Amino acid sequence: MQIGIIGGTGAEGRGLAARLAAASVPALLGSRDRTRAEEAIDRINGAAWIQAATNDAIVDTCDVVFLTVPFASVGEFLAEHGPRFRDGAVVIDVTVPLKFVDGAPVFEEIAEGSATELVRSRLPDTVRVAGSLKTIPASVLLKVDMPLDCDEFVCGDSPAATSAAKDVIGRIPGLRPIDAGGLDAARALERMTLLAVGINKRYKVRTARFRVIGV
Amino acid sequence: MQIGIIGGTGAEGRGLAARLAAASVPALLGSRDRTRAEEAIDRINGAAWIQAATNDAIVDTCDVVFLTVPFASVGEFLAEHGPRFRDGAVVIDVTVPLKFVDGAPVFEEIAEGSATELVRSRLPDTVRVAGSLKTIPASVLLKVDMPLDCDEFVCGDSPAATSAAKDVIGRIPGLRPIDAGGLDAARALERMTLLAVGINKRYKVRTARFRVIGV
Repeated sequence: MQIGIIGGTGAEGRGLAARLAAASVPALLGSRDRTRAEEAIDRINGAAWIQAATNDAIVDTCDVVFLTVPFASVGEFLAEHGPRFRDGAVVIDVTVPLKFVDGAPVFEEIAEGSATELVRSRLPDTVRVAGSLKTIPASVLLKVDMPLDCDEFVCGDSPAATSAAKDVIGRIPGLRPIDAGGLDAARALERMTLLAVGINKRYKVRTARFRVIGV
Repeated sequence: MQIGIIGGTGAEGRGLAARLAAASVPALLGSRDRTRAEEAIDRINGAAWIQAATNDAIVDTCDVVFLTVPFASVGEFLAEHGPRFRDGAVVIDVTVPLKFVDGAPVFEEIAEGSATELVRSRLPDTVRVAGSLKTIPASVLLKVDMPLDCDEFVCGDSPAATSAAKDVIGRIPGLRPIDAGGLDAARALERMTLLAVGINKRYKVRTARFRVIGV
């Protein structure tokens, strides 16, 4: 199973790559520009497990693809690359429709209900879609020595998508994947990101994340 | 500070009353019919701390009022009783706009954004509004010997509302109140209820609830 991270030079992509590298899980980190992907891998000291690639190459070759471009770029990216994903590929959307207005995070209402449902609507039926890594802060992922000690919700459009996403996330120590159901669960998960951002601000931390008790 | 629970004969109201009684916090448990309120108090062995009342009496006399009627009854209840709440009273909405279609929970979209924002819009400006107890299952509250060991989110339309709700919730052992911000946070919290209901179903438990890590 080849894992790829599209838009991997951003904080979320680098954080994911850093955690995969720390868990000895090989992956491709992608950027439009391969040189920038190499620089991102250097920044996280990930070279033993993470290889640089173009986003194009990830679309063409990977079985499990994390989509970590900014939400504002998702539409354009999928319009250009969506039809080229491999048959049966699982695309894991980690984007969140937040915009910052005068420094304050604001939730962007999505006609499809959530970013993940929008991603589903823009991809061919030959591709499976999951949503995850919505609620864990990139800054926490990037601190690889910090125990994660939390859960990460996974929603999927099919057992195959949910299972692939749970499998990758479950390889990261301290991060328990929780099956959150179908893609409409992303409506909750993406709003939980906004909730966590607000909690961080009020409690003057940058580490708020979630755990499910009683499961 | 007089605490009252409107619609207190339902599972959520009884669960809250049971936890308050266990923490030696006096409160009024209300019903349209005072006799039914007395029966509910008997069921939770709460008579040492909880007194029966009519909903009417709670509206007229309480400073902090938990609104635990079913969401479908909220509009009617507030139309009839809303104008009579005491000046400066804090109404804590615990309702969630879920309906069950063929046994499956479905989120009911609310024009105001959330049940709590709807409650706010139906009450006079002399009353303050908070939202809380959205995510903890009534069945967990009712098992008073079960450690709660989780967080409960509080959102409010004012520091006074948030502070009153945090104060009452903080008196229940094992339940940490988390300031979730303004009332629009209820959009996340109410969807988290649906998320928890789904997790309960998939993991065959009835105890799923949330904790914030890193705060």
